[in-house]
Amino acid sequence: MERPLILVTNDDGAAAPGIRSLINFAKTLGEVVVVAPDSPQSGKGHAITIDEPIRFHPIDIFEGIEAYECTGTPVDCVKIAKHVILKDRQIDLCVSGINHGSNAAINILYSGTLSAAMEASLEGIPSIGFSLLDYSFSANFDHAKSYIQHLMIYVIENGLEHGCLLNVNIPNVTAEEIRGIRVCRQANARWVEEFQEAIDPRGQKYYWLTGKFINEDEGTDTDVWALDNYYISVVPSMHDLTDYQSLKSLHSIEKMTIELK
Amino acid sequence: MERPLILVTNDDGAAAPGIRSLINFAKTLGEVVVVAPDSPQSGKGHAITIDEPIRFHPIDIFEGIEAYECTGTPVDCVKIAKHVILKDRQIDLCVSGINHGSNAAINILYSGTLSAAMEASLEGIPSIGFSLLDYSFSANFDHAKSYIQHLMIYVIENGLEHGCLLNVNIPNVTAEEIRGIRVCRQANARWVEEFQEAIDPRGQKYYWLTGKFINEDEGTDTDVWALDNYYISVVPSMHDLTDYQSLKSLHSIEKMTIELK
Repeated sequence: MERPLILVTNDDGAAAPGIRSLINFAKTLGEVVVVAPDSPQSGKGHAITIDEPIRFHPIDIFEGIEAYECTGTPVDCVKIAKHVILKDRQIDLCVSGINHGSNAAINILYSGTLSAAMEASLEGIPSIGFSLLDYSFSANFDHAKSYIQHLMIYVIENGLEHGCLLNVNIPNVTAEEIRGIRVCRQANARWVEEFQEAIDPRGQKYYWLTGKFINEDEGTDTDVWALDNYYISVVPSMHDLTDYQSLKSLHSIEKMTIELK
Repeated sequence: MERPLILVTNDDGAAAPGIRSLINFAKTLGEVVVVAPDSPQSGKGHAITIDEPIRFHPIDIFEGIEAYECTGTPVDCVKIAKHVILKDRQIDLCVSGINHGSNAAINILYSGTLSAAMEASLEGIPSIGFSLLDYSFSANFDHAKSYIQHLMIYVIENGLEHGCLLNVNIPNVTAEEIRGIRVCRQANARWVEEFQEAIDPRGQKYYWLTGKFINEDEGTDTDVWALDNYYISVVPSMHDLTDYQSLKSLHSIEKMTIELK
């Protein structure tokens, strides 16, 4: 079998230690091509650039690895990689991260890292987003190496259902403390937000987003539970946002309209 | 009963005709407060602003209506509205739009309009995103007035399940041609993308995203089908992205890891 082609991206930019670790873990498994944003893109969600052009240029910071920096969002990076840089080549796996900080639960919606992985899954590319529960720039990713590599091998060998991606979060504990992997659902947790209010040097008020992550989901089958209990969480995720439960109960809206006409 | 408090936002900015129509439709049903982005935010998805502050200021362009322009994304607008501008007041309904252009199917992921509505639903506010299948700035929204008002009244009176929002798309046809409302699932449709390549005045290459919307979903219970058949589509949507189907089949990943330890 030919060496698999692995696309690596992230939302923290090419200089972040997280993507360097991920590249190192991936390069023994296949041919790696990197397309990363040229500026930090945390919290950019599934944003795309439509009102202005996108540019990219090669960078030589990962020894022997073909790599590019792109002006767009993480989702733009995947689109440019697939349709321009790797045009006509089959991508066997897309990995995004390793993010500096959790993307468990509702964070998948806000995360550039996971949105890049989801965009790849929309393109039919099996994909995984990796995050470590440590926000510091100098975070150490080595303790997760064997788990990350095994997940990559699993997905390369078995694929994923079309449109499915894996949201993988790694607890911030030692290798010895990790208890294994849990395949779980997204916890029903949320951010309770506040804005820090302050005055700028010109006397104008400004507001800065801050908040506290609250988990009110008592299930033991969730990603937040797994991480709290020193497991690596794997949430198979997808892009169908239909609320099928509500769909059943809302058909009365259609009747309402018949009277209206 | 007190007049319900209705928060109105969008992703096209306060000057767009779509939000003006939505405000006009809403103001007969309750007290309206508008918090809209101060620049076009199409395609911004669920992006939030975390690396810089957010500002807002009152605007007086909607007669007798309390309104603000905000420097952030549509999701930021909802957060600022809820936590700063309307602090401690109960919001009975959030409506976002009316978007100039379709947000059916996978577009819900990229859409600032729908992400604003989803953010409101995460805050426990019943919410609806409205879009008209006409991208032109001078689009006419009047033919949908009675449907939009009835959907708003339904949600104010009945609420929605916690975390549920309605993704409403309106076909670009006359009032007489609209056949009613269909409550449906998100079609499994996608964008087939290309980048327009060109050279800027300094001789540098740039790329501009373009693409074609492809529906390979043959179901007659989808939003794309409903719109093609002149129905208004209503997709109850939510933020749990867990792929429960894949979850069942992926538990073998956990076993793999036990061998690893």
